[in-house]
Amino acid sequence: MNNKIQTAISPTREEDYSEWYQQVVKASDLAERSSVRGCMVIKPWGYALWENIVRALDDMFKATGVKNAYFPLFIPLSLLEKEAEHVEGFAKECAVVTHHRLEKGPNGGLVPEGELQEPLVVRPTSETIIGDSFSRWVTSYRDLPLLINQWANVVRWEMRTRIFLRTSEFLWQEGHTVHTTRQEAIERTRLMLDVYAQLAEAYLAIPVIKGRKTALERFPGAVDTLCIEAMMQDRKALQAGTSHFLGQNFAKASQIKFQTPEETEAYAWTTSWGASTRLIGGVIMTHGDDDGIILPPKVASAHVVLMPIFRKDAERPQVMAYCDALARQLREIPYGHRKIGVEIDDRDIGGARGWEWVKKGIPLRVEIGPRDIQRNAVFVGRRDMDPKEKTSIEKDRFVAEIVRILDEIQGNLFERALRFRQAHTRTIEDRGAFYAFFTPKNPEGGEIHGGFALSPWCGEDACEKKIKDDLGATIRCIPFDGAAEKLGGCICCGQPGIHRVVFAKAY
Amino acid sequence: MNNKIQTAISPTREEDYSEWYQQVVKASDLAERSSVRGCMVIKPWGYALWENIVRALDDMFKATGVKNAYFPLFIPLSLLEKEAEHVEGFAKECAVVTHHRLEKGPNGGLVPEGELQEPLVVRPTSETIIGDSFSRWVTSYRDLPLLINQWANVVRWEMRTRIFLRTSEFLWQEGHTVHTTRQEAIERTRLMLDVYAQLAEAYLAIPVIKGRKTALERFPGAVDTLCIEAMMQDRKALQAGTSHFLGQNFAKASQIKFQTPEETEAYAWTTSWGASTRLIGGVIMTHGDDDGIILPPKVASAHVVLMPIFRKDAERPQVMAYCDALARQLREIPYGHRKIGVEIDDRDIGGARGWEWVKKGIPLRVEIGPRDIQRNAVFVGRRDMDPKEKTSIEKDRFVAEIVRILDEIQGNLFERALRFRQAHTRTIEDRGAFYAFFTPKNPEGGEIHGGFALSPWCGEDACEKKIKDDLGATIRCIPFDGAAEKLGGCICCGQPGIHRVVFAKAY
Repeated sequence: MNNKIQTAISPTREEDYSEWYQQVVKASDLAERSSVRGCMVIKPWGYALWENIVRALDDMFKATGVKNAYFPLFIPLSLLEKEAEHVEGFAKECAVVTHHRLEKGPNGGLVPEGELQEPLVVRPTSETIIGDSFSRWVTSYRDLPLLINQWANVVRWEMRTRIFLRTSEFLWQEGHTVHTTRQEAIERTRLMLDVYAQLAEAYLAIPVIKGRKTALERFPGAVDTLCIEAMMQDRKALQAGTSHFLGQNFAKASQIKFQTPEETEAYAWTTSWGASTRLIGGVIMTHGDDDGIILPPKVASAHVVLMPIFRKDAERPQVMAYCDALARQLREIPYGHRKIGVEIDDRDIGGARGWEWVKKGIPLRVEIGPRDIQRNAVFVGRRDMDPKEKTSIEKDRFVAEIVRILDEIQGNLFERALRFRQAHTRTIEDRGAFYAFFTPKNPEGGEIHGGFALSPWCGEDACEKKIKDDLGATIRCIPFDGAAEKLGGCICCGQPGIHRVVFAKAY
Repeated sequence: MNNKIQTAISPTREEDYSEWYQQVVKASDLAERSSVRGCMVIKPWGYALWENIVRALDDMFKATGVKNAYFPLFIPLSLLEKEAEHVEGFAKECAVVTHHRLEKGPNGGLVPEGELQEPLVVRPTSETIIGDSFSRWVTSYRDLPLLINQWANVVRWEMRTRIFLRTSEFLWQEGHTVHTTRQEAIERTRLMLDVYAQLAEAYLAIPVIKGRKTALERFPGAVDTLCIEAMMQDRKALQAGTSHFLGQNFAKASQIKFQTPEETEAYAWTTSWGASTRLIGGVIMTHGDDDGIILPPKVASAHVVLMPIFRKDAERPQVMAYCDALARQLREIPYGHRKIGVEIDDRDIGGARGWEWVKKGIPLRVEIGPRDIQRNAVFVGRRDMDPKEKTSIEKDRFVAEIVRILDEIQGNLFERALRFRQAHTRTIEDRGAFYAFFTPKNPEGGEIHGGFALSPWCGEDACEKKIKDDLGATIRCIPFDGAAEKLGGCICCGQPGIHRVVFAKAY
C-alpha cells in the first residue's frame, strides 16, 4: 500500500490546506454547515469535545472564585451605544431583531409584524448588557471583586465564514469582573490569560505565546488586550483566547460605581475575557494530519473504540461479551475530569470501520477477535502513530496502562506541535529577509510558507499597517517574555525598535 | 418575637401569592428583571441551581443513549413554515431578525441596515431547524434510532411575563429523536417523560402527576403530548416537562426518510421533549415559605453556610481557621453528582446575615463561635425547620451525618409537598361542587382556593372550553393511572364521561 492510497483526506495539507480543513471537518463528523447563512451545526462528536473543553475551563474559572450567571440574548440598541468605540467595533456585523410576531402578508406567506419601538441587537458580546446589571449589583467596595462568567451563544454577522473559525453564531464563554483598583483588575486580566494558556497547553496540547495586542488589534473599548497565539500547520497564527483590561471605560459607560471605605464614590475597574468554539478549529489545525483529526486525550470526545471482529455469526456472542466486559472495566477508570470514554463499534462494514475512527481522531483503536480472546490480548492502534502500526497487548496490561498511554499521546501531540512552531519561528531583523519570509515562492501563492517572524517594531500604527498591506502579515502580539536584548531597527521603517513582536499571517 | 416580625417575606403567601412570588425571587437573589423587555438575568445563586438541574438531567439523558449537539439559533422563515400547525402555534410570539448591521441614520443615531433577503426567526423551539439536519443525517435504518439533545436558549415573545415562569427568553433543553417504527417512538416519548418525573420527584422534591394532554393543549404539530403536572402552593398547576410523540408530521415536513432493510423508503417517526428554567419557578412555588425559598439539597446551589462568630478581632483567626478546616472537610464529602457545597460568610452584619441565608434557602446554616470551638461543636439550623430552632451538634457527628441530614431534608420537602397536593386534590363528580371548588369565596377573587379536581370528562373540546371560559380551569392532563372504575357523567355536559381528568387553574 503506498502512502497516497493510505491517505484518508484529499487533498492533503500540502496540496490545499484550506480545502483539507473543510474535508477534515466533514470526515471527522465534528460539524456541518446549516441551512442558515454562516451558522454551523455542531454534531455529537464535535459537541462532546466542546463539553470537555467547557468542563475543564469551568473548573479552572471556579477555582479562581468566578461564578456563572446568565444575561439576556438581546441588547437594546441604546445600551450598546453607550460605549462609542465598542459599538463602532461591532456595528457592521450585528443581527438586529426589529419585529416580534409573524402574520399573513398580502401574498399569503408570513411576514414580520409588530415592529419594536427600539431594535434589539443579538449579543455579539455582552459588556453593555452585563454592565447594566452590574451597575445595580455594585454599590459598595464590599460587593467587590465581582467575578462573573457566562456560557452563551453570540452572533457576529460574518461575510466570509469558515466552520469553527469564523461563523455568524458561535458558542463561547465571556467572563466579566469588577474591581476596586486598577492594579487588581490588571492582575485578574493576566490571571485569566494564564487560565487560557493552561487550557491550550495542558488540555488541547496546543503551545501558545502569551502577549498583548497592539492598539490596532485591541478589543473595541479595551485599554489593553492580552492574548494567546498558536501556530497552525499552515504556519498561520490563531488567536486562542483573549483577556481585556477595560480600565474604567465600561464602568463609566454603564455607571458601575461603588462607595469606598472612605465613603467617597468611585468608578470601578473592569475586565472581560473569552474563549470560543474557535478552539476546536485550533485543535483540528494543530494536530490534524492527512488521515483526519487527532483528538488530544484530555478533551477527546471518547478515548477508545472497541471493534469486535468475527467471521461467523457463531463467534459473535463470545466476542461481544468480551468487548462489553472490557468496556465496563475501562469506563470505571478515572481520567482527568471524567472516566475513560469507550465506544463499541460492531458494524459489519469491513476496513471502512477502522478508517472512520482514524478520521474521527479517537486516541486508541482496539480490535478484538476470537484469536485475541484466546490469547487474552487486544490489538491496539494509536492515533499518534501510523494507522498501519498496531500492536498486540495483553488485555490486563492494556487496562492497567491505558492512562499512561493516553498521557503519552497527549505529551507527544504537544511536543510535536511545539517542534513545528519552533521550526517555523525565526528571528528576523533584515527587511529583505522579512519580506521574503512572508512571500510565497509561487507567484500564484497558495503554498504553505512563512511562519512566526520575531522582529523589531517601532510602535507606530503606520508601520504595522504597511506590513499588513504589503504582506498580509499582522502583529499577533507583543510577547511577555520578549527578551530584553538590544533590538535592531523597526522591520518596516528602520527607526529604533521598541518591541520584538510576533508577525504572522493569521486566521 | 411574634411570627409577624419573624417573617422575612412580605406579603405572605396567604396575603398575596403572586406578589409573594416576586418578593421571594428578589430576596433569594435567584434572578432579576433586565432592561430588555421580558428577559431575565439569572444571578449566580439561581444559575448554580440551574447547573445542578442540567447535570442531573444530562446524566439521565446520556444513560438512555442520548448525545448532545448544537443547532443554529436562527430559523429561516421558509423552514419554520414547513409544518403548518407548528408555525401557527408560534407565529404570534416570534422575535424576527430582519437586518444584519447598524449604520448612522439621518438623526445621527444608529439604525438597522442590510435587510436580509429572508427574515430569520429566533428559535422558539427547534423541530424544523433540527429536522433540516436530520434529513441529511438519516438515510438508512442503520442510522436509527437517532437520539439527540440540545441545551439552548429559546425566545417566545410573551406579553405578560413572570420571572422563570414565563419570560421572552429562557434556557432549556430540547431532545429530538428519530425512529424506524411508531411503537419505538411512542416508547421513547414515554421514557423521556419518566426521566422528567424522576428529575422532579427525586431531585426537585416535587411530586408530579404523569399523563397526556388533551387535543386543545397539545404541542403544535404533535400527535400526542405527554406531561408531568405539579401543584404549587396556591393550588395552581405547573406543567414541569413535556414529551411529544410527533408521529410522521415533522418527518414529512422535513423529509426525514430512511431505507428499510427491505430496501423500500419510509418516513421516520420522531419525538421531541423539553424542560426549562421554568422548573426553578416550580421549586420556588412548591417549597418556598414566608421566610423565602427552600432549596432541595439534591440540586441546591450550595448545601451549608458556615457563619463564624467573634466578638473581638483577637478571636477571629482561631474561628476562621476552624471554619476553613471544616469547610475543607465537608467539601470532600460526595453528595449526588458532586461534593458537599460550602459557603463561608464572615460578613459582620449582625442578624441580617442568618436571615439572608434563610431567604436564599440554603439547607443548613451553621454558626461557629469560640464557645462552640471549645466544645468542638457547631450550632446548626435546618431550612426545613423553624428558623429559630437551632441545635448544637458535636462537630465530628455533624460531618459524619451531613449526608443523612440532607437526605432527610430532601425527603421532608417531598413528603410535605405530596401531603399538600393530596390535601387539595378532590374527586368531584357533581357539577355544582365543581363550580364551587374553582370559585373564590371573596367576590373580588385573589384568595387561594381550588386545587386539582379529578372529574369525568366526555372528551369534547366544547366542554373543555366551556369550563375554561366559566372558571379559568383547564384540563391539565389525562392521568396514566386513571382508575378504571366507573365514571359519572361529564362534569360539564353530563354525557357519559370517558376519562377522569385533572382540572386545575394553571401557570
